[in-house]
Amino acid sequence: MATEWLVRMGSMLLFYVSYLLCVCLGVLCLVFVSYWNSTWRGGFAWDGTARQFNWHPVLMVTGLVVLYGNAAVLYRVPLTWGQNKLPWKLLHASLLFLALILSILGLCAVFGFHNANGVPNLYSLHSWLGIVTTALFTAQWALGLAAFLLPCSPVALRGLLKPVHVWMGGAIFILSMASCISGINEKLFFVLNGNTNGTRPYSDLPAEAVFANSLGVLIIAFGLVVLQILSNKRWQRPEPGCEEETSRPLLDEDS
Amino acid sequence: MATEWLVRMGSMLLFYVSYLLCVCLGVLCLVFVSYWNSTWRGGFAWDGTARQFNWHPVLMVTGLVVLYGNAAVLYRVPLTWGQNKLPWKLLHASLLFLALILSILGLCAVFGFHNANGVPNLYSLHSWLGIVTTALFTAQWALGLAAFLLPCSPVALRGLLKPVHVWMGGAIFILSMASCISGINEKLFFVLNGNTNGTRPYSDLPAEAVFANSLGVLIIAFGLVVLQILSNKRWQRPEPGCEEETSRPLLDEDS
Repeated sequence: MATEWLVRMGSMLLFYVSYLLCVCLGVLCLVFVSYWNSTWRGGFAWDGTARQFNWHPVLMVTGLVVLYGNAAVLYRVPLTWGQNKLPWKLLHASLLFLALILSILGLCAVFGFHNANGVPNLYSLHSWLGIVTTALFTAQWALGLAAFLLPCSPVALRGLLKPVHVWMGGAIFILSMASCISGINEKLFFVLNGNTNGTRPYSDLPAEAVFANSLGVLIIAFGLVVLQILSNKRWQRPEPGCEEETSRPLLDEDS
Repeated sequence: MATEWLVRMGSMLLFYVSYLLCVCLGVLCLVFVSYWNSTWRGGFAWDGTARQFNWHPVLMVTGLVVLYGNAAVLYRVPLTWGQNKLPWKLLHASLLFLALILSILGLCAVFGFHNANGVPNLYSLHSWLGIVTTALFTAQWALGLAAFLLPCSPVALRGLLKPVHVWMGGAIFILSMASCISGINEKLFFVLNGNTNGTRPYSDLPAEAVFANSLGVLIIAFGLVVLQILSNKRWQRPEPGCEEETSRPLLDEDS
């Protein structure tokens, strides 16, 4: 009995350490992406210049990575387990809605910048992945709302869709990480070319390069901590009489 | 009884469809990466020129993605379940050893090319991720060999390390995908700059750009099919008297 209690307390302590790490890494991602674009890239505006483009990485990292990841681990917080699930579902959906809006604004920032400067849209692999990620995220959110929040959706449908929702959530998060990494890498090759703006080339590893590369490392670290929290069975919200799932989560959002 | 049999057969049929898709996508990745580098990038050599560099994407995609992914899903093939596990463990370890060797050769190709042409090593985010991925893969393989194949390793240690091995396997695979995507994106910006070699710029989406972007999409599709196969609980090798696992797999390699 005492051993079981100790194991449970140890598991909970470990969860909160992981959760604290997740929150800290998320905040660091936001600080790094904002500082990079405000300090080295000239700050923010919505005027068709490069300062409009600067919203793109900030909004995508905030929406598609940090908010998305935090919304996904929400149900894992033991504090929420004893309570009615509906408010947490609403918070999960609201955080993801905010994440979606920020992602769409992030796309508007880059399309607007491209259009104002005669740069074609959607040609790089980064842009292909990014647009697919946002499209899948939109579909996932709309389907999630219809299936898990509308009172009229049948329980059988929820049971059928949950493994798909869980699995797609993880797949979209992995796509987000790959999109962000390729985007940061591409941006640094664009701006640190040693020819314009008096910058030292990327290959010299100036301070901006080390800083923005570190942002990429932080995004990966955040993503792996999120996936680690989601993959630990002991940290899943206990569901009374829940059926056996055939699909294990990459990211697990309870229905 | 008949229903249970039908469900099991349906699940097995679905597995083989997914497995066939996994094999086909893997082969397509190999064909695409080889064709891209032989047709548009001038083919292969080991002479310090760009033709030496061309081995880099071919070897990394072959080793870190296709062979690695196929080695990971090996235990899921129902054909292997009724048999002694040791030969399949040896095949799993051998495939991953081959994957590791190809990855290291892939790194030698790019380091040799850089050194012969006075290009600095390890400055881009792509290179940072790639080197960390290969280092983690090396540690994972060595630890996996020591823990799960050396007869002297205690069963308790195997039980302790299995969730770590399973989880790290998945994390490394995700890192591999992110490394490959950022690498393909970077290479296309390098070579399709519209200034040298008479190429049309990347932003014009010439045939090479569409083809290599499609390679990136194929890598992501292959990766997601591999992760889907690994996440389905029904497709896991049944282990007699296996203990409850606390860590759910991103990639699941049985101990």
